[in-house]
Amino acid sequence: MHGAHFIQDLAVIMLVAGLVTVLFHKLKQPVVLGYLIAGLIIGPHTPPYTLITDEATINTLAELGVVFLMFSLGLEFSLKKLTKVGAAALVAASAEIVLMVWIGYEVGRAFGWRTMDSLFLGAMLSISSTTIIVKALDELKLKQEGFAKLIFGVLIVEDVLAIAMLALLSGIAMTGSVQIEEVGATLGKLAIFITVALVAGLLLVPRLLAYVAQSASREMLLVTVLGICFGFCLFALKLGYSVALGAFIIGAVMAESEHLKTIENLIEPIRDLFSAIFFVAIGLMLNPAVLVQYAWPIALLTIVVVVGKVVSCGLGVFISGNDPRTSLRVGMGLAQIGEFSFIIAALGASLKVTSDFLYPIAVAVSAITTLLTPYLIKGADQTGNVLGKLMPRRTAEVLGVYSQWLASLRLEGDQAVLAGMIRRILLQVAVNCMLVAAIFLGGAWLGEHLSHLLNWYKAVLWGAALLLSLPFLVAIYRKLVALAMLLAEIGIADNRAGTYTPQVRKLVSRLIPLAALVGIGFGIAALSAAILPPWELLWLVLAIALLLLLVLHRAMVAIHARLQIALLETLEDNSRH
Amino acid sequence: MHGAHFIQDLAVIMLVAGLVTVLFHKLKQPVVLGYLIAGLIIGPHTPPYTLITDEATINTLAELGVVFLMFSLGLEFSLKKLTKVGAAALVAASAEIVLMVWIGYEVGRAFGWRTMDSLFLGAMLSISSTTIIVKALDELKLKQEGFAKLIFGVLIVEDVLAIAMLALLSGIAMTGSVQIEEVGATLGKLAIFITVALVAGLLLVPRLLAYVAQSASREMLLVTVLGICFGFCLFALKLGYSVALGAFIIGAVMAESEHLKTIENLIEPIRDLFSAIFFVAIGLMLNPAVLVQYAWPIALLTIVVVVGKVVSCGLGVFISGNDPRTSLRVGMGLAQIGEFSFIIAALGASLKVTSDFLYPIAVAVSAITTLLTPYLIKGADQTGNVLGKLMPRRTAEVLGVYSQWLASLRLEGDQAVLAGMIRRILLQVAVNCMLVAAIFLGGAWLGEHLSHLLNWYKAVLWGAALLLSLPFLVAIYRKLVALAMLLAEIGIADNRAGTYTPQVRKLVSRLIPLAALVGIGFGIAALSAAILPPWELLWLVLAIALLLLLVLHRAMVAIHARLQIALLETLEDNSRH
Repeated sequence: MHGAHFIQDLAVIMLVAGLVTVLFHKLKQPVVLGYLIAGLIIGPHTPPYTLITDEATINTLAELGVVFLMFSLGLEFSLKKLTKVGAAALVAASAEIVLMVWIGYEVGRAFGWRTMDSLFLGAMLSISSTTIIVKALDELKLKQEGFAKLIFGVLIVEDVLAIAMLALLSGIAMTGSVQIEEVGATLGKLAIFITVALVAGLLLVPRLLAYVAQSASREMLLVTVLGICFGFCLFALKLGYSVALGAFIIGAVMAESEHLKTIENLIEPIRDLFSAIFFVAIGLMLNPAVLVQYAWPIALLTIVVVVGKVVSCGLGVFISGNDPRTSLRVGMGLAQIGEFSFIIAALGASLKVTSDFLYPIAVAVSAITTLLTPYLIKGADQTGNVLGKLMPRRTAEVLGVYSQWLASLRLEGDQAVLAGMIRRILLQVAVNCMLVAAIFLGGAWLGEHLSHLLNWYKAVLWGAALLLSLPFLVAIYRKLVALAMLLAEIGIADNRAGTYTPQVRKLVSRLIPLAALVGIGFGIAALSAAILPPWELLWLVLAIALLLLLVLHRAMVAIHARLQIALLETLEDNSRH
Repeated sequence: MHGAHFIQDLAVIMLVAGLVTVLFHKLKQPVVLGYLIAGLIIGPHTPPYTLITDEATINTLAELGVVFLMFSLGLEFSLKKLTKVGAAALVAASAEIVLMVWIGYEVGRAFGWRTMDSLFLGAMLSISSTTIIVKALDELKLKQEGFAKLIFGVLIVEDVLAIAMLALLSGIAMTGSVQIEEVGATLGKLAIFITVALVAGLLLVPRLLAYVAQSASREMLLVTVLGICFGFCLFALKLGYSVALGAFIIGAVMAESEHLKTIENLIEPIRDLFSAIFFVAIGLMLNPAVLVQYAWPIALLTIVVVVGKVVSCGLGVFISGNDPRTSLRVGMGLAQIGEFSFIIAALGASLKVTSDFLYPIAVAVSAITTLLTPYLIKGADQTGNVLGKLMPRRTAEVLGVYSQWLASLRLEGDQAVLAGMIRRILLQVAVNCMLVAAIFLGGAWLGEHLSHLLNWYKAVLWGAALLLSLPFLVAIYRKLVALAMLLAEIGIADNRAGTYTPQVRKLVSRLIPLAALVGIGFGIAALSAAILPPWELLWLVLAIALLLLLVLHRAMVAIHARLQIALLETLEDNSRH
């Protein structure tokens, strides 16, 4: 049979990977490190000769490794977890990423590297490896400790921010410039994409999977899951995003399915197979000569990663109200980079905007920091003691005062409830706005693909988009009214407007939503410029819409309510299982 | 990122496969059929246009489908099951394969096809699909019936014979001729290969897996299993056998591991993924135009498969002592072809000895017979009633008499025990002979790869091979002595040789083993001709060997006993788990 080369390659990869894995397990080192070294051993740059003949096919399979790694990450991620990790994780992850991208960029520039190389370097240094850190904590039996939960929180937020970074980097690499409007537009589109994908996905996918799972055929469930996963990756790819992003989002959607356990069981061996190939393929690209050549940058960047992450994460966790000991533990637990760095490096390489040396440097720094991870975690307390002794008393006092001040800021009782309500309303308004935006963007996209657009067509298309959006617009208005009433209640104290207080409150609670709707209207007009009909037709469309609104107002509220309930059911069903 | 084409292909395959699978499950048809049709839909031969861009990579992945299908088949197969299915399955499977190859060949010739096409056609028609039949019986909830167990037995024997056929067909296709010595040599080498692989595999692999499984890391176990699987496939490939054969054998070896359940669990999703791609890839190759062009051969061959298999299997099962009703049920349950036919067709295509039309015909016949399978199984009893009424009374009487005569032939009591003992000794001698043969063949292979072989080298090499073989030769001698004593006891009745009976018996029990050893010696000399040293050196080597034998006789017996015990432990350990 043909394809002997391919079988040979796979045989060599799996054999060496198996051997090194067993060895690394004996040495109590992460398996991932074993894969990288297995790749180095059989790679083309190490004597006696290359054992891999068909590198292109291996790289294709390695790409599937990215898909399955990100998909699994998505499966482990859940929207509910995201809401629970709270402010500390958000602050720490943001501080870490901003600081590390900046330091990485500056270090790169200091080495005399090109702007794009430096930017990608910063991005590569900013994200820690969920896989490796979770495994390290697991092996050290620390998974249940408080600081470990904080670490997981930071990792989850990091994953989300990394997704945004992937999209941003693609945009910057393609346009070649970093402009604030560009960044805004990219992030805005990304937010719309993620929101629409999550809402539509959560409404459809878990129900579809439940239907398929009725058959009790694991094969059918697997094929369906893979079909949806690859289908969505393809969709993301067509919209200009990476497959990694697509796989992560659809994984997060499936995480809310009631059959999550079965799906994880089915995907696990496939992910392990392809991720082994992925990591070995990365090792294949390692050229020891390049590593020696860049020994100094690698050493320096390793120090940058460890010190930078300990400081930035630790500070972030401390600022958001944790004691110094916990902060240090979290910081030292996160001082590491991994698979995301490889994915970012691969992105740069495939877009042809980065130099060849970036990939091996990322791999080398990752390998060294991965080796250090268990020791850093174990050494956190000792380091804390040493630092505590070295610290001047004044500094320690300032830190203590800060903690007290922060604690006094916390909202309590009624205020906390109120803040929660406002937050929820704002979230709902934002989600609905994004859905409306997505509908009009979709309409505009359709319009652009119909050549010689007549005004009548435009009017019909725009009208259809408006009709589809109406339930969401109605919902936005109703939420805004509720918000305005709440704000009026708080903001306009009883004694302020005297006897007119109720009237003033009512006025405010009507004015705010109307003003907001006008703003949304302008936003829609801007998004749908390509299909915006001329004024006379626009008035007609709006008149029809208004008429429909008057007649079908109740139906629209009902439709929206039903969708919202279905969504909440999906999110809650899962927690019961 | 690059590789967008590949992701697109996979997305299309998995999406369509998922959809069609759900549909076929609703229609209560086998999933495999759905895959074939999914392939046809997205294939290049059906309008509007091909949805697959990178067919080469898909075909590479499809080849992995063969590996994992055969590996799974091996995992489900077990040596113990093979010994249990007994004579009926062996007779039926042999009758089926011989008859179907012959009929297929004749039909092909009658169509005016080339010799090689006709031969491969015969082979394709001869093997039923384990996957599809097992699934059909499962869905009809008949898995526990007596005739279903007979069907499984036939399927297992078929798998083994199919493996032999794959090797034979490769040989015939390569040399272009069917010569009886060729066939003998091919089958002999195959027997040696399988025996050595099984013995060495059973001694090493389950122990290795048990060691790896201690770590309780599913990922490590998976990577090790895949490493061993692909490594052995590569080894089989290098020896000139197919990866399908390699995957099946190493699967059968791992079936004796105590971690079989975990391994099956890990491999199942991977197999389902790649076998889906495999079956879809087969559908991709289907050209409706070719199917229409060959409509008549397809129709005829479908009838040939159904009638031929019902008759040959039914007859085989009946001859070996089952009632007509059971025989008919087994025959009708096996009237089907499947994945093995595709593998054989793929073999012919990759060796470039068969015509292009053979593959689509095999697929079409398989699809139709797969569709018929559930109805044939369900309709067996009715058919039996109809046939019973149509049959002349004389025929029925003859059938009844045959059954009684067969029952009278069965060995009972002491005789059965004796026959069992003799069978076991012969099996042990055969296995040991094959191991010895493998050692000398290995030595000869080594010798051929050393250019300018000096006589001294030859003597050392041959001597080393002899030394390695000595424990097995000693074992062969001891088993033969035991066999000869047993035979002498039975053959030379007490009254035959009068008072000399004990002496005669002793003489016979020494002569037979010595004669057999001389024969084995000639066999070894023939196998190792390439490294056989000249006489003077040969005598020296033999003398040294004899000396070693005298000194280390006990040690060699002990070594062999330990190996044998280890092997039996592996086989028995598993049954406890």
